[in-house]
Amino acid sequence: MAEEKKFMKILIINGPNLNLLGSREPEIYGKQSLEDILTELRQRFSEVQILHFQSNHEGEIIDRIQQAMEEELDGLIINAGAFTHYSHAIADALRALDLPKIEVHISHIFSRELFRQTSVLAPACDGMICGLGVKGYGLAIQSMRD
Amino acid sequence: MAEEKKFMKILIINGPNLNLLGSREPEIYGKQSLEDILTELRQRFSEVQILHFQSNHEGEIIDRIQQAMEEELDGLIINAGAFTHYSHAIADALRALDLPKIEVHISHIFSRELFRQTSVLAPACDGMICGLGVKGYGLAIQSMRD
Amino acid sequence: MAEEKKFMKILIINGPNLNLLGSREPEIYGKQSLEDILTELRQRFSEVQILHFQSNHEGEIIDRIQQAMEEELDGLIINAGAFTHYSHAIADALRALDLPKIEVHISHIFSRELFRQTSVLAPACDGMICGLGVKGYGLAIQSMRD
Amino acid sequence: MAEEKKFMKILIINGPNLNLLGSREPEIYGKQSLEDILTELRQRFSEVQILHFQSNHEGEIIDRIQQAMEEELDGLIINAGAFTHYSHAIADALRALDLPKIEVHISHIFSRELFRQTSVLAPACDGMICGLGVKGYGLAIQSMRD
Amino acid sequence: MAEEKKFMKILIINGPNLNLLGSREPEIYGKQSLEDILTELRQRFSEVQILHFQSNHEGEIIDRIQQAMEEELDGLIINAGAFTHYSHAIADALRALDLPKIEVHISHIFSRELFRQTSVLAPACDGMICGLGVKGYGLAIQSMRD
Amino acid sequence: MAEEKKFMKILIINGPNLNLLGSREPEIYGKQSLEDILTELRQRFSEVQILHFQSNHEGEIIDRIQQAMEEELDGLIINAGAFTHYSHAIADALRALDLPKIEVHISHIFSRELFRQTSVLAPACDGMICGLGVKGYGLAIQSMRD
Amino acid sequence: MAEEKKFMKILIINGPNLNLLGSREPEIYGKQSLEDILTELRQRFSEVQILHFQSNHEGEIIDRIQQAMEEELDGLIINAGAFTHYSHAIADALRALDLPKIEVHISHIFSRELFRQTSVLAPACDGMICGLGVKGYGLAIQSMRD
Amino acid sequence: MAEEKKFMKILIINGPNLNLLGSREPEIYGKQSLEDILTELRQRFSEVQILHFQSNHEGEIIDRIQQAMEEELDGLIINAGAFTHYSHAIADALRALDLPKIEVHISHIFSRELFRQTSVLAPACDGMICGLGVKGYGLAIQSMRD
Amino acid sequence: MAEEKKFMKILIINGPNLNLLGSREPEIYGKQSLEDILTELRQRFSEVQILHFQSNHEGEIIDRIQQAMEEELDGLIINAGAFTHYSHAIADALRALDLPKIEVHISHIFSRELFRQTSVLAPACDGMICGLGVKGYGLAIQSMRD
Amino acid sequence: MAEEKKFMKILIINGPNLNLLGSREPEIYGKQSLEDILTELRQRFSEVQILHFQSNHEGEIIDRIQQAMEEELDGLIINAGAFTHYSHAIADALRALDLPKIEVHISHIFSRELFRQTSVLAPACDGMICGLGVKGYGLAIQSMRD
Amino acid sequence: MAEEKKFMKILIINGPNLNLLGSREPEIYGKQSLEDILTELRQRFSEVQILHFQSNHEGEIIDRIQQAMEEELDGLIINAGAFTHYSHAIADALRALDLPKIEVHISHIFSRELFRQTSVLAPACDGMICGLGVKGYGLAIQSMRD
Amino acid sequence: MAEEKKFMKILIINGPNLNLLGSREPEIYGKQSLEDILTELRQRFSEVQILHFQSNHEGEIIDRIQQAMEEELDGLIINAGAFTHYSHAIADALRALDLPKIEVHISHIFSRELFRQTSVLAPACDGMICGLGVKGYGLAIQSMRD
Repeated sequence: MAEEKKFMKILIINGPNLNLLGSREPEIYGKQSLEDILTELRQRFSEVQILHFQSNHEGEIIDRIQQAMEEELDGLIINAGAFTHYSHAIADALRALDLPKIEVHISHIFSRELFRQTSVLAPACDGMICGLGVKGYGLAIQSMRD
Repeated sequence: MAEEKKFMKILIINGPNLNLLGSREPEIYGKQSLEDILTELRQRFSEVQILHFQSNHEGEIIDRIQQAMEEELDGLIINAGAFTHYSHAIADALRALDLPKIEVHISHIFSRELFRQTSVLAPACDGMICGLGVKGYGLAIQSMRD
Repeated sequence: MAEEKKFMKILIINGPNLNLLGSREPEIYGKQSLEDILTELRQRFSEVQILHFQSNHEGEIIDRIQQAMEEELDGLIINAGAFTHYSHAIADALRALDLPKIEVHISHIFSRELFRQTSVLAPACDGMICGLGVKGYGLAIQSMRD
Repeated sequence: MAEEKKFMKILIINGPNLNLLGSREPEIYGKQSLEDILTELRQRFSEVQILHFQSNHEGEIIDRIQQAMEEELDGLIINAGAFTHYSHAIADALRALDLPKIEVHISHIFSRELFRQTSVLAPACDGMICGLGVKGYGLAIQSMRD
Repeated sequence: MAEEKKFMKILIINGPNLNLLGSREPEIYGKQSLEDILTELRQRFSEVQILHFQSNHEGEIIDRIQQAMEEELDGLIINAGAFTHYSHAIADALRALDLPKIEVHISHIFSRELFRQTSVLAPACDGMICGLGVKGYGLAIQSMRD
Repeated sequence: MAEEKKFMKILIINGPNLNLLGSREPEIYGKQSLEDILTELRQRFSEVQILHFQSNHEGEIIDRIQQAMEEELDGLIINAGAFTHYSHAIADALRALDLPKIEVHISHIFSRELFRQTSVLAPACDGMICGLGVKGYGLAIQSMRD
Repeated sequence: MAEEKKFMKILIINGPNLNLLGSREPEIYGKQSLEDILTELRQRFSEVQILHFQSNHEGEIIDRIQQAMEEELDGLIINAGAFTHYSHAIADALRALDLPKIEVHISHIFSRELFRQTSVLAPACDGMICGLGVKGYGLAIQSMRD
Repeated sequence: MAEEKKFMKILIINGPNLNLLGSREPEIYGKQSLEDILTELRQRFSEVQILHFQSNHEGEIIDRIQQAMEEELDGLIINAGAFTHYSHAIADALRALDLPKIEVHISHIFSRELFRQTSVLAPACDGMICGLGVKGYGLAIQSMRD
Repeated sequence: MAEEKKFMKILIINGPNLNLLGSREPEIYGKQSLEDILTELRQRFSEVQILHFQSNHEGEIIDRIQQAMEEELDGLIINAGAFTHYSHAIADALRALDLPKIEVHISHIFSRELFRQTSVLAPACDGMICGLGVKGYGLAIQSMRD
Repeated sequence: MAEEKKFMKILIINGPNLNLLGSREPEIYGKQSLEDILTELRQRFSEVQILHFQSNHEGEIIDRIQQAMEEELDGLIINAGAFTHYSHAIADALRALDLPKIEVHISHIFSRELFRQTSVLAPACDGMICGLGVKGYGLAIQSMRD
Repeated sequence: MAEEKKFMKILIINGPNLNLLGSREPEIYGKQSLEDILTELRQRFSEVQILHFQSNHEGEIIDRIQQAMEEELDGLIINAGAFTHYSHAIADALRALDLPKIEVHISHIFSRELFRQTSVLAPACDGMICGLGVKGYGLAIQSMRD
Repeated sequence: MAEEKKFMKILIINGPNLNLLGSREPEIYGKQSLEDILTELRQRFSEVQILHFQSNHEGEIIDRIQQAMEEELDGLIINAGAFTHYSHAIADALRALDLPKIEVHISHIFSRELFRQTSVLAPACDGMICGLGVKGYGLAIQSMRD
């Protein structure tokens, strides 16, 4: 499918250890790898251009968010993994990005360990989807598309 | 459309002051009334039987959740309004209900007043969608349907 | 006295256990019953139509506040009893009501038990009178009238 | 057995979700229903008139406690379920009732989730029995009888 | 009007920065100066001798409260400004003064910054009126008079 | 009554200052001495062999609990006095003892000073009876017997 | 007695409301006035020149402490009243004064209200005597003399 | 000196590690041993019979306090060492002892580590002397004698 | 130099104990007296009229800030000493003054005792310079001048 | 201008998102870009060699601080952006660097969100300048130069 | 092996309930008894004289630590069991003992219950080994020996 | 020595600023450089293949831990420096790695600054050795080898 036909462009950012999806604690995070998830999303949302970035480095995630300022995106979806709970620097980068932004968490962070029950990114995003497994990514895209 | 064709049955519960949707603080909660929202959801998800219950009474919400145990539902969606933040009694009722359960919040409760940043219902639900406006209800249904 | 002559209409809401006024802990709450208090207020403020509602049910109080939206009131006076300290749902209902709103407490809640020293309703009201006994109701009416 | 022979009258109040006893989480709350428990208590304490009230509504429980002031009871036993942890309004109603009052909890609330480790009703009661299963009700009656 | 006809004597104490009333943040504190307020109060309560004292000095306020012990007053009204939130020394002076004492706050301190939501003077006073603007002074006098 | 006829063996442990029962603060702890209480219990529960141990020494209480592991007991009742609130070492000893264990408090610790409102032993016991006076011991035995 | 014979010079500073000693809450503070206390101390410690300063003004107390730097004192005794609990400015003045310094409290501040249980002056003094009534002043002098 | 001539009897209790006085951290606790201190006190207060008890065992200290109930003492002086900060059991024993009781601390506990800044014994004693070195014992005796 | 040539007017306020500069704890606060500092500042900023006010009295500082409203100043520099940490009354006075306001601290308050790590004045000022010694005053003037 | 003429060498480090200066939230951070600021500083302080480093990567900032140990610098100026509030690792690197170190913040962090009111770097630096806009960098250099 | 050949002397102290090692919760504490552990250690470290002391009594542990001052030891290893978390008295005894001191915990206390995550002994010891099972004792000896 | 003879393979990870070992604060961290330490360890444990990785970058440490999943290691030893106290992302990476994992700290973090007294890595590791200097690394290897 020719890229120029896509009428939306969305960036998904995944944070530390999410490259392990499918192998790490599958009873919590499911059995699909990031690649599986992306393939499925791109098939399902054929009209959306889905960019993807994963890193274990806080600084690279900030760089990527800043780069997004130049990219004419329609939305940003971020699952910052454990950075969710303390990276005020990522939060500041998100604040500087004037786009619809949705936080996604695969597991239900609000019923896990105490430290996971706070998101310092939340005040910098527009919404959050959590606990719905990897389906959360698709719901976020759909929410932006509709 | 004949009801017997519906292959899913989902109950949506809305808590206190959500009957005011469309009139109360529309800059936060949007302009659609509950009726508008339900009509739209029923049109969009024609294959799903959508039951709805709204009450300002904590006890009635608990009664309704208990009644759901007899109803062969496929899922429960709850936006408990301010009860979200302190009704351990509703949380206990939810714990006793063996169904997929999703919490929906229209506004982004995690970037509002401090007391709104805690959900005592979260540990009793499977997931949460918040900050995505009234679209959250539809995303929750879709998450259950897929 | 003909009701049409009244030039103000004020609703007083009393919360849980305030129906016991006059019998419960009179050393704290005084010896007058709610009826005595209302009779006295109506005599004193003959030009004000004073509506009254008491309930031990949080939900009924919320319903009553919502109903007030249709009633062309000039003010609301609320003594929510123990709900003062935790009913965010009543606070939300008050926020949605665009009227002068005054919280009244018969005893001086700020010099009693710790849990009584917080009012979750305060940020949703315009003012507070407390510790002045049942005279507080009259002062609140007067403040609205003048 | 003729009721006039009863030489004691005791009211048992059960709060939200306790109507589910026997079906909800039987590993925590046991397999007996409320009816089973009451039948057993009435057989065992044939000399005591045992009144019973269950509700999921905070307001109804307060109403019932207030009604008890007119009933010449010899004692009140209350298991307020999750209301135990936040209903200051029920606590105020109990404070206004001049009777021996015992709080019963079927499970050992002090070794469960943190929010269950506080009872706002405790300062308004004379004693507490917890963690001894449904036997707690019988022990409370016995404590009042002896 | 001859002073000997006054049948009540009340002292009003205003604390730091209240001499700026009418000029400081009029959207919060109103447009009337202290002089305007006093003139109005004295006209309205012609039967009450109203003494007034304003100071930005904690020590002077304590001295003035102590002096009040010699003055055969019928009541003390105090708006201690920011001292409200930390001057335990003023609170001790108030405790030593055996008179009806009412705290007045022009703005609704319980819905402003966190540090303004605590009054260390409250346990040393009989009541509090807040958020009702400069009308609070008049209501306090009236409460003492009736 | 011959000891071999006893079909149950229960150990009661009383902690620091409980040897003063009957003399210390009788308005809180009652007028019966420990000996009176034990005599009464042994008469009432003639079918139960009641062992008793009192000590002001945390270490001796731990030793006694460990010794209980060798004694084929049917239950342990412990009123650890002030150790209740901080002796994690006694709690550990209780955890190592595989028996029904009930904590008894004569006064209602949850309505006294703040430090008395926490029991570090609770998570190591099966249940708790408090505020029912010295009757609590009998109720605990009965709960174990039935 | 000629002053030149005095071989020690000690300054006693009393803070806010201590000028009321003898009249304020005598059940807590005793019946002796400050003058009585000083007369007694000067008689008892005839070899010590006892300077005295009382003020309700924090600033005057700081000024007096600074003046003490010029006076060749042998010790400072301070009962700062309620300033004890929040005047870091007095504490700083004490830190700058290189003398033996003893804090005295007439009542036992550690068994009174919570706010009285902290002394911000303590880290700036060498010792503290509290709860021993007005005898505390004499004990402090004696401690410095011996 | 014949013991029957003593007109006062005072018990001094020293807690854990105070037997090391003179050797442990002499820069904090001074160079005098407990024996030196007692000898000096007995010489100075020849009219007072001074009993002494030191133990590193919390239980022994409680036993000793209880034994004091039989001894017709005129006062108790206690330096409970580190037990000061957590032994609610010693505090309870002190509460049960109807005598003047003074807490002594050699060092200034309120300017040392945080855990040393709380005394759970304070509410059970009449007064406290701290930071005045071993002289504190003598001042306490004198305070009781005068 | 003729004063009329000055094109800026700046007021420096120094709070409690700062009159001791040069003598108090020189290792923290340096060896220069206030006079030395002012002389140096006036030489260096010859084009700025530098007013100065020092007081140990919170009330005098508030009075001085209020007086500044009449003085056509270009800026205010305040080092409120220990008042920095608790004087909400000074903060309120600063809020009422519509001028550039800079807080200066000679030592690095954020690496000293805990109580010094909070400035209640900060939200009422535009900026803060701390830890740079007495040079901070000059930098503040310069920041206002440029 | 020949570099060898410079008599001072100072390194400025800017942390995450500060590369966005001039475009991000200009009402808070101003309109100048980092390049503009540096150009201006180099012109103004022609006698100072100003090195500059910006990174969004915590690790690179630590590496750069370590590298500074080899560079014969006269001072370090750091604006660590959001890392200020949690990067103990940067703080440790600063602690290991034996140079004058000044923290600069463009906005007044102490009057912004709560999480911005703590600097974990402060105890590792010598001073702080905040709220004075980009002028803060120049004042820091000047403070080091003078 | 002759004792005089031992070139090191080390004391191991085990606190409450550690005499149960091998029987108590073997999934946490392992299957070896204290005797097994000591035998193994003595075989493995034949050049070290290993003294051992176990007690459930806080006071006995303090006594034993004090006795160690007379014993020319080369090191102390302490596993104080639950006393670790609250015995400031043992901590004080350790502070007074001038020897290398290592705390050992068999289980990983920092990933267990909250109360086990604090060691009041840590500031009085030189190091800690935890979570490595009973091997921790051997590693501690080895660390002292090398 | 041929690598194939090694029968164990262990990875040591050192976090930020640990490359400075030997130069940074040698009184805390000792005088040995990382190279010295590794050389010594490799000599001593010739049968163990010791891999080493140091980085100041959180992301690189996470990458390295993930890479370890492919390496057939027998254990991981991590000293994460200041990341220990806040890097939940490293903790998550450790959780995903199914190996014996030991945390090592050279200094006794539990007796240093408050922020160093928490390890967010602890719940993700099996044990901890701290305060034993660089010997800790060797003890950890030994613990894994035995």
